[in-house]
Amino acid sequence: MLSLRHCQGLTRVSLLRTHRQAAVSPLLVCGRSQCTRWSSGDGSGGHHDSGPRYRPHSPGWSHVIAGLLAGTGAVLVYRLHRSQVEQAATNIHPIREAHSFPIYTQEEVTKHRTLADGVWVTYKGGVYDITDFVAMHPGGNKIMLAAGGALEPFWALYAVHGQDHVLEILSEYKVGELSPEDCKQQEASLSDPYSSDPPRHPALRVNSQKPFNAEPPPELLSDSFITPSAIFFKRNHLPVPKVDPETYQLEIEGLPGGPVSLSLAELKSRFPKHTVTATLQCAGNRRSEMNQVKQVKGLNWGIGAISNATWSGARLRDVLIAAGYTPGTVAQHVQFEGLDRDVTGTTYGASIPLRKAVSEDGDVLLAYEMNGEELPADHGFPVRVVVPGTVGARNVKWLGKIALSQEESSSHWQQNDYKGFSPCTDWDTVDFKSAPAIQELPVQSAITQPAEGSAVDRSAGELTVKGYAWSGGGREVVRVDVSLDGGRTWQVAQLQGGDKQEGPAEAPPLGRAWAWKLWELTAPLPEGAQELEIMCKAVDNSYNMQPDSVAPIWNLRGVLSNAWHRVTVRVEEEEEEEEEEKY
Amino acid sequence: MLSLRHCQGLTRVSLLRTHRQAAVSPLLVCGRSQCTRWSSGDGSGGHHDSGPRYRPHSPGWSHVIAGLLAGTGAVLVYRLHRSQVEQAATNIHPIREAHSFPIYTQEEVTKHRTLADGVWVTYKGGVYDITDFVAMHPGGNKIMLAAGGALEPFWALYAVHGQDHVLEILSEYKVGELSPEDCKQQEASLSDPYSSDPPRHPALRVNSQKPFNAEPPPELLSDSFITPSAIFFKRNHLPVPKVDPETYQLEIEGLPGGPVSLSLAELKSRFPKHTVTATLQCAGNRRSEMNQVKQVKGLNWGIGAISNATWSGARLRDVLIAAGYTPGTVAQHVQFEGLDRDVTGTTYGASIPLRKAVSEDGDVLLAYEMNGEELPADHGFPVRVVVPGTVGARNVKWLGKIALSQEESSSHWQQNDYKGFSPCTDWDTVDFKSAPAIQELPVQSAITQPAEGSAVDRSAGELTVKGYAWSGGGREVVRVDVSLDGGRTWQVAQLQGGDKQEGPAEAPPLGRAWAWKLWELTAPLPEGAQELEIMCKAVDNSYNMQPDSVAPIWNLRGVLSNAWHRVTVRVEEEEEEEEEEKY
Repeated sequence: MLSLRHCQGLTRVSLLRTHRQAAVSPLLVCGRSQCTRWSSGDGSGGHHDSGPRYRPHSPGWSHVIAGLLAGTGAVLVYRLHRSQVEQAATNIHPIREAHSFPIYTQEEVTKHRTLADGVWVTYKGGVYDITDFVAMHPGGNKIMLAAGGALEPFWALYAVHGQDHVLEILSEYKVGELSPEDCKQQEASLSDPYSSDPPRHPALRVNSQKPFNAEPPPELLSDSFITPSAIFFKRNHLPVPKVDPETYQLEIEGLPGGPVSLSLAELKSRFPKHTVTATLQCAGNRRSEMNQVKQVKGLNWGIGAISNATWSGARLRDVLIAAGYTPGTVAQHVQFEGLDRDVTGTTYGASIPLRKAVSEDGDVLLAYEMNGEELPADHGFPVRVVVPGTVGARNVKWLGKIALSQEESSSHWQQNDYKGFSPCTDWDTVDFKSAPAIQELPVQSAITQPAEGSAVDRSAGELTVKGYAWSGGGREVVRVDVSLDGGRTWQVAQLQGGDKQEGPAEAPPLGRAWAWKLWELTAPLPEGAQELEIMCKAVDNSYNMQPDSVAPIWNLRGVLSNAWHRVTVRVEEEEEEEEEEKY
Repeated sequence: MLSLRHCQGLTRVSLLRTHRQAAVSPLLVCGRSQCTRWSSGDGSGGHHDSGPRYRPHSPGWSHVIAGLLAGTGAVLVYRLHRSQVEQAATNIHPIREAHSFPIYTQEEVTKHRTLADGVWVTYKGGVYDITDFVAMHPGGNKIMLAAGGALEPFWALYAVHGQDHVLEILSEYKVGELSPEDCKQQEASLSDPYSSDPPRHPALRVNSQKPFNAEPPPELLSDSFITPSAIFFKRNHLPVPKVDPETYQLEIEGLPGGPVSLSLAELKSRFPKHTVTATLQCAGNRRSEMNQVKQVKGLNWGIGAISNATWSGARLRDVLIAAGYTPGTVAQHVQFEGLDRDVTGTTYGASIPLRKAVSEDGDVLLAYEMNGEELPADHGFPVRVVVPGTVGARNVKWLGKIALSQEESSSHWQQNDYKGFSPCTDWDTVDFKSAPAIQELPVQSAITQPAEGSAVDRSAGELTVKGYAWSGGGREVVRVDVSLDGGRTWQVAQLQGGDKQEGPAEAPPLGRAWAWKLWELTAPLPEGAQELEIMCKAVDNSYNMQPDSVAPIWNLRGVLSNAWHRVTVRVEEEEEEEEEEKY
C-alpha cells in the first residue's frame, strides 16, 4: 500500500477525471517543495481505510488496490496514470510543472457545485476537485453541502475530520491554489462558526459542543411539568444563526399566488396568537441504551432528549391560508428551511405532511414564544416551527422558508437520516429509500428517579419512582405500569397531566394530547430484596405498548429507542446482619 | 351453610326488600307442594359461591354468613326474618300461605325495570324480584338487560347460566307467578332466538354457536388479500336479526333539526357510494395466547379474528351533514344501535368519537355492500357501520339508530367491556371507568404459515413463512421482521399491499391505510436446527412496534393481544442418521 503519513501538502497530480480509476489511484507527488515521493505501505488498507464505516464504492478502487497488492503492478499503473494526466493537461490547461498549481478565484471555485460541473472545495488555500470522492464519502451526500466553498466550517462541525488520514485523502484531489485575495477574505469569514452561539446553563449534560447538543439531568426533567427553557434539551445541527428580528423575513413558496414574505411584526400582528403545550423529543432520545447492545451512529443521548414547553405563535394553517392555500392546492408536503447554514448557504431542512400542516387540530405553530417569553437563541429565535406529536427533527428552528411541494424535503436529514430500520440492517445493506422519514413517534416512557446505580434506604420501607411518559401523534398516555422486580409484577403509577401546583389538567381533546405526563409511584420495598430492577412501560390511547427489550428494535442510527426503561438500585440494609438472618 | 340442592321450585318467602339483609338471607321455604325445608350445609360457601368470579358485594351478606357459621345464630336469624317477612306482607299484600304466590300479568312485571321500581324478571312461569341480586351478578350490569322481562333468552345467550346452582340462586327471589295467558304468549315468543341465524361456511372454526362466533383457519386467511365474506370472521353478540329491507328505517337523532329517518333505498340513492378496503379485527383476536399465560374471560380466539374486505356504502359524514350536522354541532360522540336485540328490546350498542365520524379522511361508512355484494346476514344486512382503523366492536351491524351525543354509548360493551388494563388488575380491583374504551387498535401481525407444530422438510433447503400485519388508526405497516431462531436474528419480509393478481397496491394516503398487508419471507433453513421458533413483529409508520411477550400485556379480558407471534415447527431430516452424525 501507498502511505503518505507525515507528508503535509502532498497532492495528486491528476487534475482531471479522465476515468474513475484515475480519480482513486493513490499515485501522488508532493505539490510543495519539501518532498516528492511515494512509497509502498503495509498493505493493511492504508490511509484510505479510515475506519470501519468507510467503504469505497467505486468499482475501480478494488482493481487498483488489487494491482498494487500484486507488487510490480504499481509502477505500471503509475506510468499509465502520469501519461494520461499529462496528455489531458495538455489538452485543457496550460502545461505546467507537476508541483505547481493554477490559481483560482473563489468565483471560479463556486461554479463547481455539482457532479456535472465538478465538485470543488477549498481548504487552507488549496483548491480540490473532489468529484470522484463524493460517492466514497463515509458521510454520504452531506459532502455536497461544501461544494463550491470552504471545507473548514464543515470539518469544524464534524470533528471526525480532524484526523491525519482525512487530510491525506484530501491531498490526493488538489487541483489548484486559491487566489491570495480570496484567501484573505475567507480567513476572515471562516472564524469559528460557533463563536456566536449563546451561553448555556451549566446543569446541561453536553453530548456535543459544536454543534451544541445537550440534555438536562433526569432528576431536573421530572421536577416540573413545564421544562424551563434554559434546561430544555438542545439539539442543534449547525451553528446558532444570529437573526435580526427587525429585518427578519419569512418566505412562503409553492402556493398558487406566488411567493409571500412576512416580517416578524406581521406574523405577530396579522394572525391570532395560539398557545400549545407540547413535548418535543429527539429521535435519538435514549440512544445510549442501543449503544449498549451494539454501537450505533449518533450522539449518545441519555433519557433527557425530551422536554415539555408552552409554545405561542401563529398557526401554520392560518398563515398558509392567508398565503393562498385552499383545499384544492396540489401539494403533499410542507418543507421548512432553517436560517442555520454553512458557508455554502445550505440550511437545515425538513418537511411534514401537508395533512398535518393544515389540519384544524394539527396545532402546528410558527412559534415566537417559548414558556411565555421570546424564543431563546438555542430554540430558534425569532421563529421556529412547532409540530406537536412529531419528532423533534421536523420542528425546524430559525425558520427562514416554508415551501409547499409534492415532494418531501430533499435535505440529508429528511432523506438519509431519522429513519428506522430492522436490527438486521447494517451500513452495508441500508437503503434509506426503503423506510419512511420519522414523523409521529411511538409511545415512550422513562424513569427519572431513582437514578441508575443509586442506593435506596430499606428502613424507609417504601420507594418513590418518578418518570415521564409521552406518545406521538397526539395519542394520550393512559397508563404507566411500573415493576420493582424486573418485570415479574407490575403496579399502576399515578399520572400527572398538568402542573402539580395547578392540579391535574383537564383531559386533552382526543388526538391532541401533545404534552407528556409525569408519573409517580410510591410502593413498599419488596421484602428481602438486595437489589431492585425497576422498569416502566407506558400505554397510549391507541393501546400501543412499548417493546420489552432493546436488541430487537436496535437500528444502525440508534433512533426510536423506546423499550421499557430499566434502572437498577441497591437496597441498603440499616441492620444488615439481622435482615440477613431473617431471609 | 344452607343448601337447597335437589329441591326444585324452592323459593324465598320474603316478597319485600325491608332491608338488604333480608334480601340475601338464605332462609327459604318451598313454594310448591313437594317440600318445605331448609337445611344447614357444609359451610363451603354453598350455592351462593357460583364460581371464582362470583363475589357478593352486599355488606349485609357477610354478616349473615358470619352469623350462620357461628352455629346457633342461624335459628335466631331465621325467627327474626320470618317475623319481619310476615309483618311486611301484612302491611302491603293480602295475607296468604307461605307457599302460595300472587299472580302477576306481564304488564305488571314490565313496570319493574329499575332499581328504584324494583327489578323483576320471569322464568318458566315464575316471577322473581332480583333487585338485591343485581349488585351481586357476576356478569355485572348486563343483568339489567332482562329487567321487566323473561330470563330465558338471556340464559340461552349466555350458556353459563345452565347450571343447577344458578337456578337455586334464582329460586330465592321468587315473588309470584305469571298469569296463564302471559305464560302462553311468552312461550310462543321464547323459541330459540338463534333459530333464524343464517347457515355458515363449514371451514369456519366455531368458538361459540349462540351467539355465533367463528374464525377462518389461518392458512385460508393469508390466501387472499380480500377475505371472502363466507369465511370473514364472525363476531355476533346476539342473535342475527331478520330485517326486511323494504321497511328498514335508519333513525338519526341528536341533531339540531330533530330526528331523521332514512329508508335503505334513500341511503343508496341520496348519497354517493363510497368504497373502502378495510380490515376489521376483534379486540379479542389472539386471546388464546393470553389464556396460556393465565385464564382470561372471553372467547378463545386464535389468530383469525381479523379479516379484510371491500365495503361500499354512504359515508357517515355525508349522511350526518344531510341530517343537519355542522361543525358547530355540540356533540363529542356518535352512538350506534344495532337491531340485534333481546326480548326486552335492548340492542347491541357502541359509539365512536364524533371527530372520527365526521372527518373527511375518516372514511366511516354506512355500508350496504361487502366484497361487491349485498351485506350478508352475519355481517349486518341491510346496513352496518364500518369504522376503518377501529376495533371491530364499534363497527355496529344491523344498524338501527345513529345518535349524536355528548356521552359515549352507555352500552355494556362500551362501558364495561372492550377496555385494556394492567396485568396487575384482576376482577376484584378492576375499575372500568379508569380505562378508555378501545377505539384505534395497536400494531399487529401474525404467522399464518407454517402452522404451529407442523413439520418442515429439511431437504427443501428453505422455508416460506407467511402472515398478515395491520395497525389501527390508518397507520400503515411499513415493515415486518421475521426470525427463524427465536428472535436472535431477524429478516425483513416482503410486504404485499394489495391483491397478488393485481400486483402491489399503490401506497395508501397518509393516515388512511385501512387494509392489512399480507407478507411473505422465503429464507434458507438454519443449518442443523431440529426445531425452529419462528416469530414475526410489525412496525407501523408511527414506528410503533409490537411488544415482545404476552405476560406483560396480559389483561383480564384478554383483549389487545399483540405480542410477537410465535410458531414452533420441527425440521424433518430426510437422512436423519447422517445429519445427526454431522451435528
